[in-house]
Amino acid sequence: MSADYFSDFSTVRYEGPDSDSDFAYRFYDKDREVLGKRMEDHLRFAVCMWHTFSWPGSDVFGAGTFDRPWLNGPNDAAAAKAKREAGLSFVEKLDLPFYCFHDVDVMADADEIGAFRDSFAEAVDHLEELQEQHGRTLLWGTANLFSHPRYMAGAATNPDPEVYAWAASQVRDALEATHRLGGANYVLWGGREGYDTILNTEIGTEMDNFGRFLSLVVDYKHKIGFEGTILIEPKPHEPTKHQYDFDTQSVFAFLKRYGLENEVKVNIEANHATLAGHAFEHELAMARALGILGSVDANRGDPQNGWDTDQFPNSVEEWTLAMLEFLRADGFTTGGFNFDAKVRRQSIDAADLFHGHIGGVDTIARGLLRAAKLIEDGRLEDFRSQRYAGWDGELGRMIHADGTGLADIADHAVSNKLAPERRSGRQEWCENLLNRA
Amino acid sequence: MSADYFSDFSTVRYEGPDSDSDFAYRFYDKDREVLGKRMEDHLRFAVCMWHTFSWPGSDVFGAGTFDRPWLNGPNDAAAAKAKREAGLSFVEKLDLPFYCFHDVDVMADADEIGAFRDSFAEAVDHLEELQEQHGRTLLWGTANLFSHPRYMAGAATNPDPEVYAWAASQVRDALEATHRLGGANYVLWGGREGYDTILNTEIGTEMDNFGRFLSLVVDYKHKIGFEGTILIEPKPHEPTKHQYDFDTQSVFAFLKRYGLENEVKVNIEANHATLAGHAFEHELAMARALGILGSVDANRGDPQNGWDTDQFPNSVEEWTLAMLEFLRADGFTTGGFNFDAKVRRQSIDAADLFHGHIGGVDTIARGLLRAAKLIEDGRLEDFRSQRYAGWDGELGRMIHADGTGLADIADHAVSNKLAPERRSGRQEWCENLLNRA
Amino acid sequence: MSADYFSDFSTVRYEGPDSDSDFAYRFYDKDREVLGKRMEDHLRFAVCMWHTFSWPGSDVFGAGTFDRPWLNGPNDAAAAKAKREAGLSFVEKLDLPFYCFHDVDVMADADEIGAFRDSFAEAVDHLEELQEQHGRTLLWGTANLFSHPRYMAGAATNPDPEVYAWAASQVRDALEATHRLGGANYVLWGGREGYDTILNTEIGTEMDNFGRFLSLVVDYKHKIGFEGTILIEPKPHEPTKHQYDFDTQSVFAFLKRYGLENEVKVNIEANHATLAGHAFEHELAMARALGILGSVDANRGDPQNGWDTDQFPNSVEEWTLAMLEFLRADGFTTGGFNFDAKVRRQSIDAADLFHGHIGGVDTIARGLLRAAKLIEDGRLEDFRSQRYAGWDGELGRMIHADGTGLADIADHAVSNKLAPERRSGRQEWCENLLNRA
Amino acid sequence: MSADYFSDFSTVRYEGPDSDSDFAYRFYDKDREVLGKRMEDHLRFAVCMWHTFSWPGSDVFGAGTFDRPWLNGPNDAAAAKAKREAGLSFVEKLDLPFYCFHDVDVMADADEIGAFRDSFAEAVDHLEELQEQHGRTLLWGTANLFSHPRYMAGAATNPDPEVYAWAASQVRDALEATHRLGGANYVLWGGREGYDTILNTEIGTEMDNFGRFLSLVVDYKHKIGFEGTILIEPKPHEPTKHQYDFDTQSVFAFLKRYGLENEVKVNIEANHATLAGHAFEHELAMARALGILGSVDANRGDPQNGWDTDQFPNSVEEWTLAMLEFLRADGFTTGGFNFDAKVRRQSIDAADLFHGHIGGVDTIARGLLRAAKLIEDGRLEDFRSQRYAGWDGELGRMIHADGTGLADIADHAVSNKLAPERRSGRQEWCENLLNRA
Repeated sequence: MSADYFSDFSTVRYEGPDSDSDFAYRFYDKDREVLGKRMEDHLRFAVCMWHTFSWPGSDVFGAGTFDRPWLNGPNDAAAAKAKREAGLSFVEKLDLPFYCFHDVDVMADADEIGAFRDSFAEAVDHLEELQEQHGRTLLWGTANLFSHPRYMAGAATNPDPEVYAWAASQVRDALEATHRLGGANYVLWGGREGYDTILNTEIGTEMDNFGRFLSLVVDYKHKIGFEGTILIEPKPHEPTKHQYDFDTQSVFAFLKRYGLENEVKVNIEANHATLAGHAFEHELAMARALGILGSVDANRGDPQNGWDTDQFPNSVEEWTLAMLEFLRADGFTTGGFNFDAKVRRQSIDAADLFHGHIGGVDTIARGLLRAAKLIEDGRLEDFRSQRYAGWDGELGRMIHADGTGLADIADHAVSNKLAPERRSGRQEWCENLLNRA
Repeated sequence: MSADYFSDFSTVRYEGPDSDSDFAYRFYDKDREVLGKRMEDHLRFAVCMWHTFSWPGSDVFGAGTFDRPWLNGPNDAAAAKAKREAGLSFVEKLDLPFYCFHDVDVMADADEIGAFRDSFAEAVDHLEELQEQHGRTLLWGTANLFSHPRYMAGAATNPDPEVYAWAASQVRDALEATHRLGGANYVLWGGREGYDTILNTEIGTEMDNFGRFLSLVVDYKHKIGFEGTILIEPKPHEPTKHQYDFDTQSVFAFLKRYGLENEVKVNIEANHATLAGHAFEHELAMARALGILGSVDANRGDPQNGWDTDQFPNSVEEWTLAMLEFLRADGFTTGGFNFDAKVRRQSIDAADLFHGHIGGVDTIARGLLRAAKLIEDGRLEDFRSQRYAGWDGELGRMIHADGTGLADIADHAVSNKLAPERRSGRQEWCENLLNRA
Repeated sequence: MSADYFSDFSTVRYEGPDSDSDFAYRFYDKDREVLGKRMEDHLRFAVCMWHTFSWPGSDVFGAGTFDRPWLNGPNDAAAAKAKREAGLSFVEKLDLPFYCFHDVDVMADADEIGAFRDSFAEAVDHLEELQEQHGRTLLWGTANLFSHPRYMAGAATNPDPEVYAWAASQVRDALEATHRLGGANYVLWGGREGYDTILNTEIGTEMDNFGRFLSLVVDYKHKIGFEGTILIEPKPHEPTKHQYDFDTQSVFAFLKRYGLENEVKVNIEANHATLAGHAFEHELAMARALGILGSVDANRGDPQNGWDTDQFPNSVEEWTLAMLEFLRADGFTTGGFNFDAKVRRQSIDAADLFHGHIGGVDTIARGLLRAAKLIEDGRLEDFRSQRYAGWDGELGRMIHADGTGLADIADHAVSNKLAPERRSGRQEWCENLLNRA
Repeated sequence: MSADYFSDFSTVRYEGPDSDSDFAYRFYDKDREVLGKRMEDHLRFAVCMWHTFSWPGSDVFGAGTFDRPWLNGPNDAAAAKAKREAGLSFVEKLDLPFYCFHDVDVMADADEIGAFRDSFAEAVDHLEELQEQHGRTLLWGTANLFSHPRYMAGAATNPDPEVYAWAASQVRDALEATHRLGGANYVLWGGREGYDTILNTEIGTEMDNFGRFLSLVVDYKHKIGFEGTILIEPKPHEPTKHQYDFDTQSVFAFLKRYGLENEVKVNIEANHATLAGHAFEHELAMARALGILGSVDANRGDPQNGWDTDQFPNSVEEWTLAMLEFLRADGFTTGGFNFDAKVRRQSIDAADLFHGHIGGVDTIARGLLRAAKLIEDGRLEDFRSQRYAGWDGELGRMIHADGTGLADIADHAVSNKLAPERRSGRQEWCENLLNRA
């Protein structure tokens, strides 16, 4: 039934910037080569099963506004089946290669652990068929360890080890399912791994339990032969007051502490970056510098709102900056751009799902094209390199040489009476270059 | 001349909560024992030489408002001498044990490197005499690597190695001076170690240069036999758009990356914590969990203002939470509470310097007393411990046992059909306990 | 059935600061006189029917966690009846005088307008009985014009006049019910009176429609003889991107524009104040200055979180500042302090509802006592008055005299060669006074 | 001497999007007609004398970095003369029509009131010559009532009437000078019209004094025959904790309260809008709705920084939204776009002043072109109008008709059993239209 939900819509194709259609790509031309790689291979777009198919249009102040045939409460098996069908059908209509899910997004939920596992197993069987039928595959899977009331105090950081064990069961199954469905990555998203009040919380214990959990997941991945990447997604807060995976540097601290920095990478979400007080491109640049850039959740926040609005990307300017860092990092290996975004609660039509995704795809594609143009132009990259040229000179090499001490460098400054010349940082010129791309 | 500036004021003493005087401590009773230690030994208060003695009362929109006899431009040697005298005299009047300084706070500034070093050396000689005379000593020293135009693009992260070398000279001298003056710690404060625009910045290079610098400082500390602690002070931004030492977790990531986590600790500033999106007590708890709690810059921000207001502490409630973490961490070893705070620009009288410090001292002392009472009462600590009691039980121990795998834990959940009982987090009750202390 | 929910709890009474009970007031002594008025008459506390009785403990990331016998979906008449009984019973157990509700909080919801009205009428009949039985009464009533999907684009600012008419029906009934139940005020809370995107919005039209609505409500109030106060509650955003009633000054602008400034006052919520970038006490002071202070929704936000957390008040320091403004304004006429607060999602026990309210009551009571003490002490008020003493002098009176022009004042400055002496603002001393209260 | 500072630079001209020059306009083609008006007449660009010519490149943490020949301390008359020459020469080099100043920007400062007036008079004489010589004129003048220590507690809101009188003298002279120099507007910028702490502040008194001041200025304007517009510039805070002119709605509240809403308009600054928690386009739309849109200070903030960064505009996306509101408001009458922006502290070269302004001019010009294209396309405007079409229908007209009461509207809903159909708000489609422009 629900696959028919999109029957009025044709498959979305590239028609170029001058298209008159609301249902065409103007910039995302999947076979176009950009810096030696096809756009589809650069961008590896995915549709998410939660916001786009499971969320009913509710918010804290009001009930769901969407009339979707597959929304009939979380425990209805027929509705869950319809949702899976609608989901894969939609990804095909968008002509995008990937989708992503949490276990509970694609199944009829159940409180009892055995029933839960059976329901998920049934969903995975069906997804395997649907992937084949629609020619789509899985960018990443994950387990929802935050919506059920049992997780109200966290999963891997829960004070109760029984909750931890439930989480272990869900993750084992979701990881195996991801492996079976050919998923390219597996995400651990710490929806409630943090605290509501520090008064009842021992963060040292919670972080150690979390580190243990992550180590166990990495071991299990190797045991079952899953070759995808394990990803952690930083978020500073919401729903908790404070989440441990605050941002990329916090995650790196965590990985280094538990010896996992070569096993786990970050899945950076644009809206989480800005909630943490960082520019999106900063988080990408930091992940690149630390060698842990894994994948991206593509969305945006609202600059005036202090919560996770999860809107579709619509700023080419923001994405040009992001794609500069992306290209400098040589892009993804297993990662991709997953639309962790929801159409607004007032956008109740099926068409709005298309508008959201098409706008997002083209925004990112334009960002890629502009960033590539800047790199090809070379002036920005050259200026940046030249600023640091001194580090390849005599003094720069001396500073980093074995055996050089603080006093050697200080003596150099004193004996040469150094009075360094100031050079313009040329920020406005850099910004102008960007705007001309 | 300037020591006379405070001649109208008597030494501030403890007079108890019922004192009528504006110039007495009501809660800071330095010899009172709290949890087995004298208050003075717990708190180790310090006065700073920058905000309190060098800042003229200027802000971005206006000129200085303070008429202090020692403020006569940064290059006047007589004024610098008067400032040092006034500073140590003031610390004695407050009956606090410590002070802190940047090199340029206590000297006549000079552009030329030789003249700069001579001027600083003269200042250090004088400070040594003044310490003896006033019976005060140094909590920590540091070098100002951000005010001079040469540092406009950073010091250890400057693109120009000549600037880096200048910084090395200043740090060598400031570290040696700190050693000679009996300083308990040495602080590296990264005032401009970050970027204004990512467009002209290569953060990987800058962080590596910064890591190298820090390693060289640690080596030099050992070489000269300085036994104090090296501290880094996190700050998220301002004056730069983004600073690398964003918060405690970022600093830990940095230290781990360059193998310095056992050599360097953090100097946490309350206002920097809140600018980074954290509660002050969170940063203390995190530093405790990571084993890098070193010292504290005691001040506060304004919850409605997005910049570093550096106000004197005045919230007993905030400091009760902070002191809970402080006591749980067993307090400081070499660290202390340094008043990195400035009286408001309209607080132009000498008396205002007393009001600011007395209010700050008493706020922190009350926080200590309330936190100690909570710990002695035991209910909060007990409730918190009981929440995690399961980790000492069979399942908790199994999870952490060698040889346990993810599947073992998952199997346990499945075979026992775990349906964990929810237990109240009792946040409101915890908050009530806090308010009753 | 549900009245029994609280059968394990005795009525909460004043037991003084040294009480050992978790279920007693330590500071709220209802008959104690403070500045000539009983505490109960100053504070006029109310319990809200939404957060405390209708919210199931859900958030954006998870389902409800509370097992309350009266939570059985919004359309169940028996559950609604049980909820009303539990609500009034709880208010009596707390020994507080008032409660507050939206229409849908106390009734079985219905989509059809006739059924909706019938259901509400039944609820009001029952509430009238319960008020009598429990000896409690209504601080204010309101209509929920934001939760139903019909209101997704606002109520009085909806682009569709049919939605506006539905809202008119709800408000007519809720206003009449409030009148019948002896309510002291009626609140218009603009939950979605704003916009999600300015791209599809004409704010001039929406504000005019909103102004019209408010005028019609005021007329109707007079027509039916309701003598309570009409209140508007400012909020800057959430759930919308931007709400028109951003803060107190915005509401005043609105009221002046539509000639309603003598008819309508503000209901200030602490958490909304801080989300708007204001201190809570600022909004009270501004409402006092503008003559529109009506009532208060007592709660708090989290300083690190950018959404409406609606936590119970727990900062005596914040409430001391607030109560200073409250007392300077001579308190409420018809208004009161309504606990628009919810226990945390992990606070799942019945006892937690008591802890939340008891903590809130005592926090506000302590704030009142401290503020009264400051006023009786007089030093803060005197210093503040003296700062402005010049306005009672010759020059101050000349400036405000009829016939004085800009040139007269300027000439005075020039001919007297005015060089105004600076006087300290003594902020730190003021803060110290506050902390000593 | 200083006019020569720019001698290496030619006058900046329009060269079109394909220009290779860093010193050309690509989009600002002053004679091009857009919606029936020349671009120069739409945009009315101005250069400011404070950031661009008076600020030395200092910040809170460091000294000035700029070597400009005219920066030799605020009291040097020759330097002030050189600065005026450089300023007007630069405006001509940019081929922009206007400049703006505060009194102290263009003169040698003096503490004594007579000397101050003489120095300003000399500056105005010189500016009159320079305007003639360079063919430029004044967009607006203003008086600096915040930098001198006498204004530390405000000017028109100062507790001391003598300070108020000094301010009256400055404003009289600056208003007369603006009139004489052909200024199109006069701005009152309330740099410190607010408070640092509410504890020592009576905001009712301060607002009344401020209202009186503004009334006197309006009267004086009429008395001297100045036909330009009086403008107030909203800002939420900084340097004060709280400014009374928080945002456009606050200013409107203030104007209505003192009966000035037809005499005074707002000068909206982009960075102030975002600091107040509003989108820039929101403030423009609100000013349009309230009929008080006067002029614009063109700059931007940094989304991650909580202070006034005053950067040059560089987001075409933000300015497209802004220009949509601008065009819907039929643009300016006397107002213009003043670059209240400063090049970054590291942008120390003369060329950087050009890059900043050229980038800003082109960003705004592109915003104008894109907004005009959207208006000509018509789809966005049509969709927006159709959303409100019901208000021209029978029910909409009935609601607004004289004699209609709340009960009439409610009865209509009940008797017609209204069940309004939900219609999509189409936010994503609107955003896509915007991106295609």
